[in-house]
Amino acid sequence: MTDTTREWTLAERPRGEPDLDCFDLRERDRPKPDPGELLVRVRYLSVDPYMRGRMRDAESYAEPWAVGDALKGGVVGEVVSSADGRYDAGDLVTGNGTWGDHTLLDADEVAPVDPSVADPPAYLGVLGMPGRTAYFGLLEVGEPKPGDTVVVSGAAGAVGSVVGQIAKLNGCRVVGFAGTDEKTEWLTADLGFDAAINYRTADDYGAALAEAAPDGVDVYFDNVGGPITDAVFGELNLDARVAVCGQIAHYNDEETPTGPRKLPLLIAPRARVQGLLVSDYATRFGEAADRLAGWVADDDIEHRETVVEGLENAPDAFLGLFSGDNVGKQVVRVSSPE
Amino acid sequence: MTDTTREWTLAERPRGEPDLDCFDLRERDRPKPDPGELLVRVRYLSVDPYMRGRMRDAESYAEPWAVGDALKGGVVGEVVSSADGRYDAGDLVTGNGTWGDHTLLDADEVAPVDPSVADPPAYLGVLGMPGRTAYFGLLEVGEPKPGDTVVVSGAAGAVGSVVGQIAKLNGCRVVGFAGTDEKTEWLTADLGFDAAINYRTADDYGAALAEAAPDGVDVYFDNVGGPITDAVFGELNLDARVAVCGQIAHYNDEETPTGPRKLPLLIAPRARVQGLLVSDYATRFGEAADRLAGWVADDDIEHRETVVEGLENAPDAFLGLFSGDNVGKQVVRVSSPE
Repeated sequence: MTDTTREWTLAERPRGEPDLDCFDLRERDRPKPDPGELLVRVRYLSVDPYMRGRMRDAESYAEPWAVGDALKGGVVGEVVSSADGRYDAGDLVTGNGTWGDHTLLDADEVAPVDPSVADPPAYLGVLGMPGRTAYFGLLEVGEPKPGDTVVVSGAAGAVGSVVGQIAKLNGCRVVGFAGTDEKTEWLTADLGFDAAINYRTADDYGAALAEAAPDGVDVYFDNVGGPITDAVFGELNLDARVAVCGQIAHYNDEETPTGPRKLPLLIAPRARVQGLLVSDYATRFGEAADRLAGWVADDDIEHRETVVEGLENAPDAFLGLFSGDNVGKQVVRVSSPE
Repeated sequence: MTDTTREWTLAERPRGEPDLDCFDLRERDRPKPDPGELLVRVRYLSVDPYMRGRMRDAESYAEPWAVGDALKGGVVGEVVSSADGRYDAGDLVTGNGTWGDHTLLDADEVAPVDPSVADPPAYLGVLGMPGRTAYFGLLEVGEPKPGDTVVVSGAAGAVGSVVGQIAKLNGCRVVGFAGTDEKTEWLTADLGFDAAINYRTADDYGAALAEAAPDGVDVYFDNVGGPITDAVFGELNLDARVAVCGQIAHYNDEETPTGPRKLPLLIAPRARVQGLLVSDYATRFGEAADRLAGWVADDDIEHRETVVEGLENAPDAFLGLFSGDNVGKQVVRVSSPE
């Protein structure tokens, strides 16, 4: 045990697709917790598509990272040193920390991790921000009703895989778009999706969707954008709801992307399209946590994490999100129990 | 007085911009009312942008016209012959009839016209379908709050001019896009808009909008689409609401129009975009009629009709909608009181 720790910083802003030059692994003194803080040895850290937005020099819902800043995100880790009465050394917690071997966490903003409910990395996926996003996005924006057809893009990702399963629990027909046969097989064989379309091999998304969703689309949960979304907008039913959760197809665009105009398609079905940020539901995170944990405990929701080994590979894990390397939640294993 | 009447029929479906070849004025025997019907001598008929959709061979919210069919729309006229106990010859009524000298109307679906409230053509505009569209679209989809900035495209049209004035009555800052200096002057000098942008002479819609709406856009009522809408989407505030009422810029497109993708812009502001059809509010038309008539009577809402003379010029009046010939509601005067 040394007095130093490593953490990833933003070396330069990406232009277009990020690469490893954007990241710099620095060594620094291990920080000490101020009152109310915890020093945590990181077990797992989360890489998420939205982080691409924080690498831009533009105000958005998440503050941009400055060049030289430590990268931050969801972590699960073990308390090494506590300056808060509620937590002791050895406790397993989750919160927002740095991409590092160690991180400080604000004790007010951490939650306990209970390995008897689910393995720790699940607290970065189905029991973490992605699960909450799926929960509120589908139920509050999508408003699924029994018998509705729900279409999900990025369906095998951390958010999409939970969206589809909650939709099934609500009595919906569920169709997912994903990028490999392994993923589509997982969706239909393990997660109970009614149909899944491999967008890398499908010739005609519209035709594939018309077959998979013969009664049209009542709810579309969009994580992707681009041509998949173009096809779905052509199939919207009367009073359809579209939750715009992510647009990963466009996060690396340097120029404003162009495509078919969609507004003319909204009038006849009176469709509603709404941007979604999970933080708007912060006062109800406890409700989501309880229900998601219950579904996981009852095996009503399956989850999978794709684990990349080693802090040094965190940038690779992040970049892999844009090529669809992950099935379920992408995490990085930083350390193991001692 | 003869036993025949004239009516406009669809001669051929337009490809792209319609022209006069699409219309055919036919003579036919004047129809006789069956029980429950009224034979009406048309005083004014309404031409509306949505009718372009009925000229296409594609199912939409309004049934397509067949080639050879009489064209239909809102009319104001005088009952010539009544087969319903509620109406007598000489009564002035409004309803949905043919573009003709005479039309049959279903007595269940007409409303009386009271010239002491407003001149008869106003019953095709502020007191007709366009006024109701403005009322429900702004209040139910736009949900304006005092202090909000409301932007309207097609602001000097039949719908937009009413939208802006209802927004002012709700304590909003109102900015309109229109296509001539005469129109922008009307909006700001007579209707109380806070600012108006001539989209034909403005160099940079984004810059013009940033100046006219320095606090961003809370509500956007879109009648137009295209580059105006592109500019507005860049200025949406947190929780902005967009009512997609019309997309006249695209009605004559033969190919799917392309433009900048807008969904990525919706996430950060959690903006909501919703298609709007006034028929969804049919059970509340009485409420709208009462409130709109009250505002007109109190001079809280100004209205203007652009009148083209003569049934033979009805196609020209319709085609003029796409070049923005109308200020306020475009109507055709078919006959005058005898």
